[in-house]
Amino acid sequence: MNQTMTENEKYLIPDEEIDDLQNGYSLIQSASGFRFGMDAVLLAAFAKVKKTDRVMDLCTGNGIVPILLAARTESNSISGIEIQEKSADQAKRSVLLNHLEDRIRIFLGDIREAPQRFGMSVFQTVTCNPPYMIGNHGLQNPDEAMAIARHEILCTMEDVIRTASHLLVQGGRFFMVHRPFRLAEMMKTMMMYHLEPKRMRLVYPFVDKEPNMVLIEGRKGGNSRITVEKPLIVYEKPGVYTEEIRKIYRGG
Amino acid sequence: MNQTMTENEKYLIPDEEIDDLQNGYSLIQSASGFRFGMDAVLLAAFAKVKKTDRVMDLCTGNGIVPILLAARTESNSISGIEIQEKSADQAKRSVLLNHLEDRIRIFLGDIREAPQRFGMSVFQTVTCNPPYMIGNHGLQNPDEAMAIARHEILCTMEDVIRTASHLLVQGGRFFMVHRPFRLAEMMKTMMMYHLEPKRMRLVYPFVDKEPNMVLIEGRKGGNSRITVEKPLIVYEKPGVYTEEIRKIYRGG
Repeated sequence: MNQTMTENEKYLIPDEEIDDLQNGYSLIQSASGFRFGMDAVLLAAFAKVKKTDRVMDLCTGNGIVPILLAARTESNSISGIEIQEKSADQAKRSVLLNHLEDRIRIFLGDIREAPQRFGMSVFQTVTCNPPYMIGNHGLQNPDEAMAIARHEILCTMEDVIRTASHLLVQGGRFFMVHRPFRLAEMMKTMMMYHLEPKRMRLVYPFVDKEPNMVLIEGRKGGNSRITVEKPLIVYEKPGVYTEEIRKIYRGG
Repeated sequence: MNQTMTENEKYLIPDEEIDDLQNGYSLIQSASGFRFGMDAVLLAAFAKVKKTDRVMDLCTGNGIVPILLAARTESNSISGIEIQEKSADQAKRSVLLNHLEDRIRIFLGDIREAPQRFGMSVFQTVTCNPPYMIGNHGLQNPDEAMAIARHEILCTMEDVIRTASHLLVQGGRFFMVHRPFRLAEMMKTMMMYHLEPKRMRLVYPFVDKEPNMVLIEGRKGGNSRITVEKPLIVYEKPGVYTEEIRKIYRGG
């Protein structure tokens, strides 16, 4: 155990720690900066990925979504792209730490250049847990890295959706988690780029509260018909997750 | 009592009956044809109508929505338009039966001609519980009146939304109930006609089932930001309404 800790600590730089994802994998995170949230966990559980799918995770941050997808699916071709050097580097080291270098590749770069870099219509699946907040609205976070992860400073919702559409093959699937207040804009933009909304699930913190997340699946070139799924309720009472959330965290 | 029945029966034609709405009003319905459903009740409860609002209910059918709005709101200018002569006639007689002729007017006609007939930008509120099923999809009902009420035979979702937009003043509100499988198309069409989706509520029959209705509010010329409300759950167990549904039926 002590030896393993020493062994793994070689992947760390100061102000970082290793978090056990409770699914056989671990993640390197900043001890004081941006840390992954339930959004990434729910997105990875919502996405349907086949063994032969080539997957691209946009705005991958510290690589949480690719690592969760590696745990949950059989795909051997999972890529992630991140614009912030520090986060991309953290993600790359988490891939090494988990010995997932044969299945996951992390790229440093701007998602807006991804279609030129990787090619048009080359992925079966694109996932994204993007910054939620509109440009300069709301308080900008004093930590620049956190501000970029949370606000549309370096990429907008339209950048994400346009890029996803260009990267996907015809019939390919796009999975995104976002805030419900942007649902109308999200659907409009998806349809503008031929990613027809096909499946949606609202995440309600409590059964009697407004939803705070929306999970959406779009299909490139799909027809106009959406399945709205049963509500995903997070807490059965304050501090106690519902059985479904506990199952998702266990990897179910 | 017997005398009241006799008094009211003068409003009826064969194969009709009077249903007590449990809110001080009654409705004439066909004993064997199309009868109002929970959709109309939830739509009337979802709509926010001010005392001075001029209201138009499109595809008003037997007039259930105008009568519920008369019970729930203070508006003295509630109109309803219906293309089927038999239904429009039934609605007119229900207005008389309830002595609501000073507050409700029922018009026979095609909603697509409503802006020419009533004028552009003249209503503060438009409501609609339209036919849900796409054109020739699904089994057409053998009863023609019922088929017209349920299928987009005489008007499409786009007809409803375009008409609503033309009838509404800038900032006016549109309230509609529909099926969730058409949510993406609904939002796209609303935005195309400058009715920005501002508020949405999904109606789930049970807490662990897919929603079967969606209530939506659009504002003419509104900005892009939608509030998704807490789930509306119909049954707490089979055959037993939740307290919220019971309250809505009581007019609360």
